[in-house]
Amino acid sequence: MTHAERLARLRLIRTPHVGPVSWHQLMLRFGSGEAALDALPELVLRGGAGKARIAPAEVAEREIERVATLGARHIFSDEDDYSAMLREVEGAPPVVVVRGDTAMLRRPCVAIVGARNASAIACRFARQLAADLASRDVTVVSGLARGVDTAAHIGALGGSTAGVIASGIDIAFPPENAALQERIASDQLLIAEQPPGAEPLARHFPSRNRIIAGIAHGTVVIEAAPKSGSLITARRAGDYGREVMAVPGSPLDPRAQGCNMLIREGATLIQTVDDVLEAVGPIDARMVREPVQRYAAAPARVNAGEGERRSLIDLLGPTPVAVDELVRQSGQDASTVQLLLLELELAGRVERHAGAKISLT
Amino acid sequence: MTHAERLARLRLIRTPHVGPVSWHQLMLRFGSGEAALDALPELVLRGGAGKARIAPAEVAEREIERVATLGARHIFSDEDDYSAMLREVEGAPPVVVVRGDTAMLRRPCVAIVGARNASAIACRFARQLAADLASRDVTVVSGLARGVDTAAHIGALGGSTAGVIASGIDIAFPPENAALQERIASDQLLIAEQPPGAEPLARHFPSRNRIIAGIAHGTVVIEAAPKSGSLITARRAGDYGREVMAVPGSPLDPRAQGCNMLIREGATLIQTVDDVLEAVGPIDARMVREPVQRYAAAPARVNAGEGERRSLIDLLGPTPVAVDELVRQSGQDASTVQLLLLELELAGRVERHAGAKISLT
Repeated sequence: MTHAERLARLRLIRTPHVGPVSWHQLMLRFGSGEAALDALPELVLRGGAGKARIAPAEVAEREIERVATLGARHIFSDEDDYSAMLREVEGAPPVVVVRGDTAMLRRPCVAIVGARNASAIACRFARQLAADLASRDVTVVSGLARGVDTAAHIGALGGSTAGVIASGIDIAFPPENAALQERIASDQLLIAEQPPGAEPLARHFPSRNRIIAGIAHGTVVIEAAPKSGSLITARRAGDYGREVMAVPGSPLDPRAQGCNMLIREGATLIQTVDDVLEAVGPIDARMVREPVQRYAAAPARVNAGEGERRSLIDLLGPTPVAVDELVRQSGQDASTVQLLLLELELAGRVERHAGAKISLT
Repeated sequence: MTHAERLARLRLIRTPHVGPVSWHQLMLRFGSGEAALDALPELVLRGGAGKARIAPAEVAEREIERVATLGARHIFSDEDDYSAMLREVEGAPPVVVVRGDTAMLRRPCVAIVGARNASAIACRFARQLAADLASRDVTVVSGLARGVDTAAHIGALGGSTAGVIASGIDIAFPPENAALQERIASDQLLIAEQPPGAEPLARHFPSRNRIIAGIAHGTVVIEAAPKSGSLITARRAGDYGREVMAVPGSPLDPRAQGCNMLIREGATLIQTVDDVLEAVGPIDARMVREPVQRYAAAPARVNAGEGERRSLIDLLGPTPVAVDELVRQSGQDASTVQLLLLELELAGRVERHAGAKISLT
């Protein structure tokens, strides 16, 4: 890939109102980052906004330099080093910043996540399970948070472990994990979706969790309160058709209630490493997958008029509705609806939600 | 029922080699305890043993007097006060000795069983769950053992609780539960299959467990090691088509591993009383059942010869085999096979096992 193309792709994803889904659609529609970037102003205009606020070339150049200085690199979703499992996920990051050895993502990956305020026994269990998985050539994926995440990474240090963080790759959070994060970046694999310098904002954590679930063949939850972030990771794993596993605990311990709930809902109860291997085993066949889809052929241009746009907007409201549903109800063809939605999104008038849903902003 | 009939039935079940299944078959075949008792010597003879060692009338008379002295009573399986749920179970006790209020067995019954060396938190959970069930008009059934059983009975004392013991009704085990057992006998319901004076022998406990599982619409296990008696109760509950429920715990606690195993095998994970009620709820319809089958009509007498007996014995070995299988392989009709097996059993030459299986002794 040329430097110009990398730069264009990066500018695209760093542009306001371009999210992972619209980035992917732009790439499919225009065949390259450069072509998509060229097309952007007109799309924004047609979507109903004024001038497009496209990320300046200097900003992307600075990011590329900064990433190099940090000993890191960008990997785009159609590049070989990108996780094949993550690539399959709707809304996968168009680009990630990594430090370390991406080869470990070609082995079976199991995520271990859980409570930041985990009990000593849960941390011990996480550490041991991670060590057992690592010794069986499984890559342990987690989020470098306090508690269970930290224990899982430490347990797997003798093998392979990948840390996915909610901040830029140059920022350690929580601060007490700075040394562990540096060790993982040097000897293992550290992954960030946000650009360098980005603080770990609250809204970045669910995005980070989807990456953990997306990389892994299955996710094990160890101690999680109801409504915790770990349960979001587990739900994403379920959405992606991956194995959801949970370690049970006493119903009198609030930290166990989320896990017990998951088990009641069908998650596999985990007591030992063999339980995990048995659960994710059948997924091994999925390691052999289709060749990576390269962005190349631009589909025929669609010309949707003001009437089509108007009637589509009338169908939208503040409640997210499935794109498929919009196609059905509008009577327009799917390609037209997608283009109109893309234009509206780029203009900041609609917003995408999980499960291919869309709402007015 | 006449005194003579009660006496005959009691002598029958207290006779060596007459178990619950053969007692029931004798009653079906001969229509009454008196007729069955009359027929016994010839059956034993045909089965290949010498003189039948039938329980003497004096022994049964003494038992009836002793039971009366203790303020207890015998209930035969076709009497109204006998648990309708237990009556459905293959190998249900032909007679039980009870003290207290049998009306509570007409309400939904839930068994709570678990480890004798249970943790403090498990005992607290058992007590609270039992109290919650009792307050919802559910009868809590348990085995008056140390630990979880004791906690469950105590929790349910404000409502209804039935204790099923492995000894005679006049013997308390463990000794420290003597006061609790007396309180349950006075205010609640105490049930024993063994005659008064019988010590709680190890082999009586699995029999006791089948009664607990048989009385209950569902069984909740709280802390149980693999291979513990509580798991036998749970398996019986499963055999009887009743709900099997388990309270999870940390995989690092050996006392939780049996419960976690049950959940992995499909038992319902229980966190609250509502989880229990939801699980056993659908069984409520089973409370309305067929009128009690009375022993009356004697089926036509079968005359099986020495050849049939010989070929049946040849099919038997030390490994238990299903009676259905024997019928198929022998080519004889089911009634003949049953009679031959009954005779062999009464002669002490074959032994019955769970699941309608039979082996040579």
